Amino acid sequence: MNEENFTAALAALFSQRQDVLTGPGDDCAVLDLGLPVLLLAAVDQVISGVHYLPDCPPALSGGKLLRRNVSDIAAMGGVPTHALLSLAVNPLEESWLLQFHKAIAEECEKYGMSVIGGDIAKLFTQGEVLSLSILGTVERDKLCLRSNACEGDWLYATGCFGNSFYSGHHLTFHPRLAEGRFLAGRFTNAMQDVSDGLLKDACRFAASSGLALHLDPDKIPLRRGVSVAHGLTDGEDYELLFAVSPEKADELERSWNFPETGLSRIGQFQKGTPGHVTGLEQVDLSKFNTGYDHFK
Amino acid sequence: MNEENFTAALAALFSQRQDVLTGPGDDCAVLDLGLPVLLLAAVDQVISGVHYLPDCPPALSGGKLLRRNVSDIAAMGGVPTHALLSLAVNPLEESWLLQFHKAIAEECEKYGMSVIGGDIAKLFTQGEVLSLSILGTVERDKLCLRSNACEGDWLYATGCFGNSFYSGHHLTFHPRLAEGRFLAGRFTNAMQDVSDGLLKDACRFAASSGLALHLDPDKIPLRRGVSVAHGLTDGEDYELLFAVSPEKADELERSWNFPETGLSRIGQFQKGTPGHVTGLEQVDLSKFNTGYDHFK
Repeated sequence: MNEENFTAALAALFSQRQDVLTGPGDDCAVLDLGLPVLLLAAVDQVISGVHYLPDCPPALSGGKLLRRNVSDIAAMGGVPTHALLSLAVNPLEESWLLQFHKAIAEECEKYGMSVIGGDIAKLFTQGEVLSLSILGTVERDKLCLRSNACEGDWLYATGCFGNSFYSGHHLTFHPRLAEGRFLAGRFTNAMQDVSDGLLKDACRFAASSGLALHLDPDKIPLRRGVSVAHGLTDGEDYELLFAVSPEKADELERSWNFPETGLSRIGQFQKGTPGHVTGLEQVDLSKFNTGYDHFK
Repeated sequence: MNEENFTAALAALFSQRQDVLTGPGDDCAVLDLGLPVLLLAAVDQVISGVHYLPDCPPALSGGKLLRRNVSDIAAMGGVPTHALLSLAVNPLEESWLLQFHKAIAEECEKYGMSVIGGDIAKLFTQGEVLSLSILGTVERDKLCLRSNACEGDWLYATGCFGNSFYSGHHLTFHPRLAEGRFLAGRFTNAMQDVSDGLLKDACRFAASSGLALHLDPDKIPLRRGVSVAHGLTDGEDYELLFAVSPEKADELERSWNFPETGLSRIGQFQKGTPGHVTGLEQVDLSKFNTGYDHFK
C-alpha cells in the first residue's frame, strides 16, 4: 500500500466525535466546540539525522519544530495559540535543554503563543526525537481546507521552491502566517502548506478537492540555481498553496502587500481524475522521488 | 539542579496567555476559552526499552500510551475528548502500525475519544518513541488542581501501589476516570495521579499546595508481596491521590461505590515546609530512589 492509502486506512480506524469538523488528513484538525471561533490542532515532529543533521544547535532544531507547526496553522487561515512539547533526547543535558526551550520561548513570543505543558524523557540511544502539538483558532468564515478548491480556480503559491536543505531554508524559514491571514476568507478558503514537496502536496490538494490539476512548470518560482524538477520534489519549503477564483485573482495580485514574499500563479484546478496532474510532460522526473514517502 | 527545580526553570521561560488558567506543572494545562467547560491539555510519551520492553506487542504499548494520558485527565476531574499521535518508529512496518492504531482506536471508543491527527516518521535506529497529546474538558466546579489541598485535609489514594512493572500493571492498568469524576467537585478539588512513585508525587502534591504532609506507612495499600518502601517508590501506579476535608471523609467512605477499586486514607496535609513529608522515619528508603528522576 502506498503512504497515502495507508495513512487513509489508519485514519479510517478512528470514529470521530460530533465536534470534529475535520479529522486527520488536512494540515490541522478542526474542532467546533461552540465558540465563535473554531479550534485547530496538529502535531509534528523533527528527528535528529532525519529532519536535521545530528550536530544541529538546539536553537535551530527547536525553532524548526515550532515553525513547521505554525505553518500548519497558517495553512488553515488561523492563528497559533498554545503548544505542548514532547522530547526524547540522549544525552539529557541541562545546557542543551535550556537552549532548546529558550529558542522555543522566543519564537512563541513572536507568535503570541504559550507552551502549556510538556514531557522530557531520555532516549535509549544518542539522538533527539522532538515532537510538538499545536493549538490555534480560526474564524468560521476564514477556515481554509484542502477540500475547498473549485473547478477553474487558479493555484497560487507563496515564496519559492527547491533546495531547502542545502540552502538552510529548512531551518530558517518563516511560516507564512501573515500571508495566510491576509488570504483567508477574503481571497481563498482552500489552502495547504508545502512540506513534503510541491508536486506531492499539490496532488494531495487536488485529490482532496476531487479535482485534477494543471501545473505550469515555467511559472514555478525557484530558489536560485534550482531546477524545476528539484523545485517540484525537494520538499520542506513551508510555503502556502492556495486556490483563488479567477474573479478574485486580479484584486489579489493588486493588493498583495508582502514585498519579501513572492506570489505566483502556477496552475489551475480542473475537472478530471482527482489528484491527477497535467502540464509536466516536458519535465524529467524519472530520477526524482515525487514526494517524501516514509514507506518507501 | 534537581529535576523539580530544572523543569520549573524551563517552565518559567514561557509567558502564559491570559486564557491559560494553569500552565506547566499540573497533570494537565487548563485553558479558559470562554466555554461553560474548561479545556484540558497534556502530552506524554512512552519509549521502547524505557517504558516497556523492546519486544512489547504494539497493542500493549499503544494501550499504555493512551491510558497514561487518560489518567492525567482523570486527575483533573475531567473527561478525555481528543488525541493527537506522534510516532517515531523503526522498522516502519505496516502490520505494526496497524495493530498499534487498532489498539488506540479500541481504547478511544471506550472513552468516547477521537484521534484527530498524527505524524508518523522513521526513527534513525531500531526502536519506538510514541507520543500522545490529549485534550479533555472539565466543568469549572469540578476542576481539581494539585495546589488546592488545604491544611487538615486527609490524603486519600485509590487502588494499591508497588511492583507495577513486574506485575504487568504498567501495561494493563485502568485509569481512574470514573472514580475521578465521582470525586471531582463533590469530595475534592485537589487531585493528582501517581506515575513517578507515590512518595515523589505526594511530595509534589503537598509542595504545590504550600503544605507539608504526614504519611501513615501502615495505611498505604500495597500490591501483593510488595514492601512499603517499594510501594512508596516503584512508580507507574496510575492511581489517584486526592485531598478530602475531614467533614466530608465519612460521607466519601460511605458512598464509595467502586468495589474493584480500593479507597485508603494514607495521610494528612499539615502546616509546614512545603513538600516536606513526615511519618516515614521507620521505613528504610536508603536503597531506593524516592521517585523517578530523569536527570539522575
